[in-house]
Amino acid sequence: MISGVFFYQRAMPKISTKGIKMPESPIRKLVPFAEGAKRKGKTVFHLNIGQPDIKSPEVALDAIHNFSDKVVEYSHSAGFESYRKGLANYYQNVGINIDHSDVMVTTGGSEALLFALNTCLDNGDEIIIPEPFYANYNGFSISAGVQVKPITTSINNGFALPAIEEFEKLITPNTKAILICNPGNPTGYLYSKEELETLRDIVIKHDLFLFADEVYREFCYDGNTHHSVLNIEGLEQHAVVIDSTSKRYSMCGIRVGCMISKNKDVMATALKFAQARLSPPTFGQVAGEAALSTPTKYFDEVSEEYVARRDLLIEGLNKIEGVICPKPKGAFYCIAQLPVDDADKFAQWLLEDFDYNGKTLMVAPAAGFYSTPNTGTTQVRIAYVLNQEALTEAVECLEKALEIYPGRIR
Amino acid sequence: MISGVFFYQRAMPKISTKGIKMPESPIRKLVPFAEGAKRKGKTVFHLNIGQPDIKSPEVALDAIHNFSDKVVEYSHSAGFESYRKGLANYYQNVGINIDHSDVMVTTGGSEALLFALNTCLDNGDEIIIPEPFYANYNGFSISAGVQVKPITTSINNGFALPAIEEFEKLITPNTKAILICNPGNPTGYLYSKEELETLRDIVIKHDLFLFADEVYREFCYDGNTHHSVLNIEGLEQHAVVIDSTSKRYSMCGIRVGCMISKNKDVMATALKFAQARLSPPTFGQVAGEAALSTPTKYFDEVSEEYVARRDLLIEGLNKIEGVICPKPKGAFYCIAQLPVDDADKFAQWLLEDFDYNGKTLMVAPAAGFYSTPNTGTTQVRIAYVLNQEALTEAVECLEKALEIYPGRIR
Repeated sequence: MISGVFFYQRAMPKISTKGIKMPESPIRKLVPFAEGAKRKGKTVFHLNIGQPDIKSPEVALDAIHNFSDKVVEYSHSAGFESYRKGLANYYQNVGINIDHSDVMVTTGGSEALLFALNTCLDNGDEIIIPEPFYANYNGFSISAGVQVKPITTSINNGFALPAIEEFEKLITPNTKAILICNPGNPTGYLYSKEELETLRDIVIKHDLFLFADEVYREFCYDGNTHHSVLNIEGLEQHAVVIDSTSKRYSMCGIRVGCMISKNKDVMATALKFAQARLSPPTFGQVAGEAALSTPTKYFDEVSEEYVARRDLLIEGLNKIEGVICPKPKGAFYCIAQLPVDDADKFAQWLLEDFDYNGKTLMVAPAAGFYSTPNTGTTQVRIAYVLNQEALTEAVECLEKALEIYPGRIR
Repeated sequence: MISGVFFYQRAMPKISTKGIKMPESPIRKLVPFAEGAKRKGKTVFHLNIGQPDIKSPEVALDAIHNFSDKVVEYSHSAGFESYRKGLANYYQNVGINIDHSDVMVTTGGSEALLFALNTCLDNGDEIIIPEPFYANYNGFSISAGVQVKPITTSINNGFALPAIEEFEKLITPNTKAILICNPGNPTGYLYSKEELETLRDIVIKHDLFLFADEVYREFCYDGNTHHSVLNIEGLEQHAVVIDSTSKRYSMCGIRVGCMISKNKDVMATALKFAQARLSPPTFGQVAGEAALSTPTKYFDEVSEEYVARRDLLIEGLNKIEGVICPKPKGAFYCIAQLPVDDADKFAQWLLEDFDYNGKTLMVAPAAGFYSTPNTGTTQVRIAYVLNQEALTEAVECLEKALEIYPGRIR
């Protein structure tokens, strides 16, 4: 029998082209170097990942502590009905007029985007995304067999929406959707109502879907207003919103988000994908539903804290010679242009070869947030998710590092 | 501006062909009729879904009640390292010699299968699956752009593995994998070691992956032994196991499973898909890790209960004139052949037009578990997930229903 096996033996089965094309996370790929730095005794300031240090709301944690079911059952594939109604109420309170039947609970915003892609795009179809964009959009697109067509925005005008003509140059018969992140990860850019109306005109003219990742909705600063695509007249059948509890309530680990659209075909189709995976996580939904009662004070304090961190960070960065960093209007990230040969090498060097008083910082090289090759290679994404003291030290580290980095460009 | 919008207005954007092809869940599609029956005051015995009524282990619920982190953070994309080590230890205890680096924690067995498909198969590639099979394999295959090639097994020999020649007839240059469920949902079939060795010979000869969904591993009855594909010599680079905590610990709602393979390329590639979705649910992992300490007594009691239920159900079913139901060797489902014109119509009729003393039952029409059209149309899947009293009443309902069902075939 065994000899038969060896007689048959040929090459090992091969992984898919899709799997080969799948990018490593630019946010996580330097992790081994960070672990190495820590083994050497260095303190590493983690500005590479959007994992806030803000406490999760007590109401949410209390609901988990008091979970009283004896069997942890599947929920409805679209999520608890009570939670969907609570979510509809939340959206109404922020001025977005939707019904609970327009909302489906998902396993994080990640799954919401994957469902939106599978629902609206076929293998080989194209989606236009302003870059730099949240790096994992690449991964979800590859999973769904979708081609990303990036439209590059510039640090020189703060990553504003490109002109309508630039979009139209990219539109082909295979283009099915445009995806934006608003407020933007990694840029902190907040779209104006006029920009959203421009996007409306494009998607209606070319019969496209408009996906909007609005997970940072609550993180808008300096009195700026967030405009949801759900509130843009004429977009009712085109707009699909991706949302998440992760950042809003600093509960990244609960893996609960949602997908929202007034397009009934879209929601009915997405539900079929949801049924295949049975249900979103029960405990996460319990925490998410309870979190809807988080007092306003929580958000006010969080917002105040992020504004203080942002101001400290952006001011500090722009004081460093050769660094350019537009001031984000929302979210808790910025893209900074550094005077270095290559941000990938610099980020690795920070962890491997540098410390200032035993401390260093970890940043995410920005090239992974661009889909166009060789773009953003001297930029990094910095998440201001640490307290002000740590941020101050991290900026100081960066300044010292840039003074002695061998690949510095003047 | 608005007039411009109406000027541009064309057809609504259309959902994808993938979305249209996506099947409705055969397990859940009758839900509206069940809701209707309940509104009329009928008691409905839910034998349509594998949602056990068994209590989740207390150690797992206690861990949730005692969760003490103040921030619910992302975990490692592959899951908590401590949990992966605990899982490796669990597998070693059931005779499967793997290391924690061979295990990746996923959001349910569902995600593990989706990752396995994306890692190993490209759009248009083919996977052979003995049918009837767990209906959601269709959904995951469509999501991944993969073609299912069913190989039909017969109720007449208890759904045993078809002959090797039958497999070879289906293999083309696009065939990349075979998928089995062992013990089987929906058949309760348990593969013998010889059958697994036959599969080994096929996959090695044709350079395929062998995916095995082993989520019902603990549910093997009558002294039968479960053989994992991870223990079949020669399959090290070919075998990928899909596993889940859902049924083992009756915690379907925690959405935690895992993917296991000794093929390092497979695991490294799957990790990239895992990184895109950031992490599996934190609370579910806490419960899953704690559940590893569930006392043996729990499983003994559960197994004893399922055997009693199975015996009661299968005996009851086979006593009904015209019903054929092979005795399952594992899991907690059976496929029964009914003397009806169409099991879909019959299942709907049970809910809409029938009751016996105010009671009726809900079953899953088996056609949704076959991929070959017009197959299994007079079969149903019954999950024995209710207590013995309810099961007895449900079997009695079925008997009475078959006596008066207008579409009865003699």
